[in-house]
Amino acid sequence: MIHLSYEQEITLIQRLVMAQGVSAEDAASLAAVVTHSDFTGTYSHGLSRLCIYLRQYMAGALVAQPDFRCVKDAEASLAFDCGGGSGIVAVNRVYDAVLERARKFGVAAGVGRNSANIGCGGYYGHRMAEDNVIGIVVSNTYPCMAPYGGADRLIGTNPIVVGIPTGEEYPMVLDISTTNVAMGKIQAAQREGQSIPLGWANDYDGRPTTDPAQAYALTSIAAHKGYGLAVMVDALSTLLSGACYGTDVGLFSKLEKENTGFFLLLIDPSRFMPIEDFKRSADRYIRMVKASRKAEGVDEIFLPGEIERKKFKEFMMTGIEVSEALQAELTQLSRKLGVDFAGDSFPDLLRHFCG
Amino acid sequence: MIHLSYEQEITLIQRLVMAQGVSAEDAASLAAVVTHSDFTGTYSHGLSRLCIYLRQYMAGALVAQPDFRCVKDAEASLAFDCGGGSGIVAVNRVYDAVLERARKFGVAAGVGRNSANIGCGGYYGHRMAEDNVIGIVVSNTYPCMAPYGGADRLIGTNPIVVGIPTGEEYPMVLDISTTNVAMGKIQAAQREGQSIPLGWANDYDGRPTTDPAQAYALTSIAAHKGYGLAVMVDALSTLLSGACYGTDVGLFSKLEKENTGFFLLLIDPSRFMPIEDFKRSADRYIRMVKASRKAEGVDEIFLPGEIERKKFKEFMMTGIEVSEALQAELTQLSRKLGVDFAGDSFPDLLRHFCG
Repeated sequence: MIHLSYEQEITLIQRLVMAQGVSAEDAASLAAVVTHSDFTGTYSHGLSRLCIYLRQYMAGALVAQPDFRCVKDAEASLAFDCGGGSGIVAVNRVYDAVLERARKFGVAAGVGRNSANIGCGGYYGHRMAEDNVIGIVVSNTYPCMAPYGGADRLIGTNPIVVGIPTGEEYPMVLDISTTNVAMGKIQAAQREGQSIPLGWANDYDGRPTTDPAQAYALTSIAAHKGYGLAVMVDALSTLLSGACYGTDVGLFSKLEKENTGFFLLLIDPSRFMPIEDFKRSADRYIRMVKASRKAEGVDEIFLPGEIERKKFKEFMMTGIEVSEALQAELTQLSRKLGVDFAGDSFPDLLRHFCG
Repeated sequence: MIHLSYEQEITLIQRLVMAQGVSAEDAASLAAVVTHSDFTGTYSHGLSRLCIYLRQYMAGALVAQPDFRCVKDAEASLAFDCGGGSGIVAVNRVYDAVLERARKFGVAAGVGRNSANIGCGGYYGHRMAEDNVIGIVVSNTYPCMAPYGGADRLIGTNPIVVGIPTGEEYPMVLDISTTNVAMGKIQAAQREGQSIPLGWANDYDGRPTTDPAQAYALTSIAAHKGYGLAVMVDALSTLLSGACYGTDVGLFSKLEKENTGFFLLLIDPSRFMPIEDFKRSADRYIRMVKASRKAEGVDEIFLPGEIERKKFKEFMMTGIEVSEALQAELTQLSRKLGVDFAGDSFPDLLRHFCG
């Protein structure tokens, strides 16, 4: 098992993405989010997701140098066309622009259309905490959920991200999808010949199923409540931005152009009270929650994002492990991308980029 | 069974509340929300909830003429001290102020502290739709939910309201709590000697229970995801406003001063695109969802708020039914409030106010 340091992963990603024609600045933006994902233990959006991004660049489903432009600019509200580039790069750029407005007006919102998968939502939550702003990011995704009571796949996993800055305690960062599981979990069960719990997915006719081969549409969290949240994510991220929704969204794992949209809100708490007061208050809240009596078998109560932040701290010391399968995939993909490195193993590839 | 018209309920509430010293303007604000609740079939926040408000006024737990004042004013962000008055009146006042700023800046947010129960969230969603703005309202409530993995009651039902304006279709209005059920449902089961489904509530030690008498803390929707949402509602509505949270919040059914907080965000879609384009787009989205193939046994797919809106249309024609128990409670309460009406029945009370 190979261990990859934070700096190694950042460099590896930057160089592979730049080899696709992506600018150094955008590559750094993308690398920060993908690496954050691995280093907070959210492997689904780390290097394994990078492999898809790289294939999307090769297939032209992601534009390496997108025509990213502001299409509406009115005080505290901004709208962007992301030009079909990386959704990660787009969210970070919109974030920069919205942050400036939030500092000016106290609150500001931005939307992006013609976007793509936004990667690890937790990253944006941590940016918010570092910038001392409260924020919300939502995005639509390819359709994989049926409306409540329906059978067609029309709504995405539609993640909701919220970030709250704190003082001495870990920032509070919520990063949830509005489906009970990701499609990847069902595919994994199918590969391993296992059944899935009732409630994860419905079959083509909208009936609950435990057979991963019959699983067609994911179910929403909390029945109609999660469906309602997912609809509101669609409204904010696609209706307000002019992005695609429903079956007009491309499936990124099939290397289709996605054309998704996202919505980003930032609030400067220092407009409401001195920022140190806000942070102290957040710390107090966290300590109150953590001091709760625990249910049987529970050792510790965690706030949203705390587990990920603890993993981050740990992995920054130990590095992350990269599985043999992922090593092989990255190595082969690099060859396909025309990276000219001596040797034929992942350590050889790493040496080529990171010395 | 007596049928109450919309106008009758509005008048009845206004007059009863004004008898507590509430101004005509504030009484109209409160009456609109309570009546909307009954007329959308959300009886829990209608006249039965009004009885609690009236008792709160009598006990001094709600201030009839609160010192409602703006404590921070900075472009697109506003903070208010609600002076311990009705939460409904407070949200409507903050809404007015934030709407003006949203028109000016495109996006604006307001918070209120020293507030109380905000009543039927769906009402604010419908205000948003009528004003052609997108909006979010969240509020904390008295603590009745344990943190995920915990046993103490520290977090409220923490509702989330989102409103989206539409064109020809019904507005999309989400109004959900972050607990699986309201405490009232468990109390009802106990009264009727029935057990409750596993997953609704935990006992004092944090163990799932089916015995309503043992039910101590409500559970969050979608396990850790709903807990995370509830924490974020706390952060926005209490940390940003300076309101109380956890066990510092008073229990309104015990006629304690609540001191809750709320957060309100309004977005003017006309800053992003012509409003008619937005509304047409929302209509198209709704039609796409409603046209989905249906799961077995499902006749129709509903968008958030659609069922309530249909009930509203129906009840505006038929009026709402008021149970014998509620009639008796309102009649007795009116006597206690010193309303001097001829006779001793609810119809007599109605006649006194509505002729």
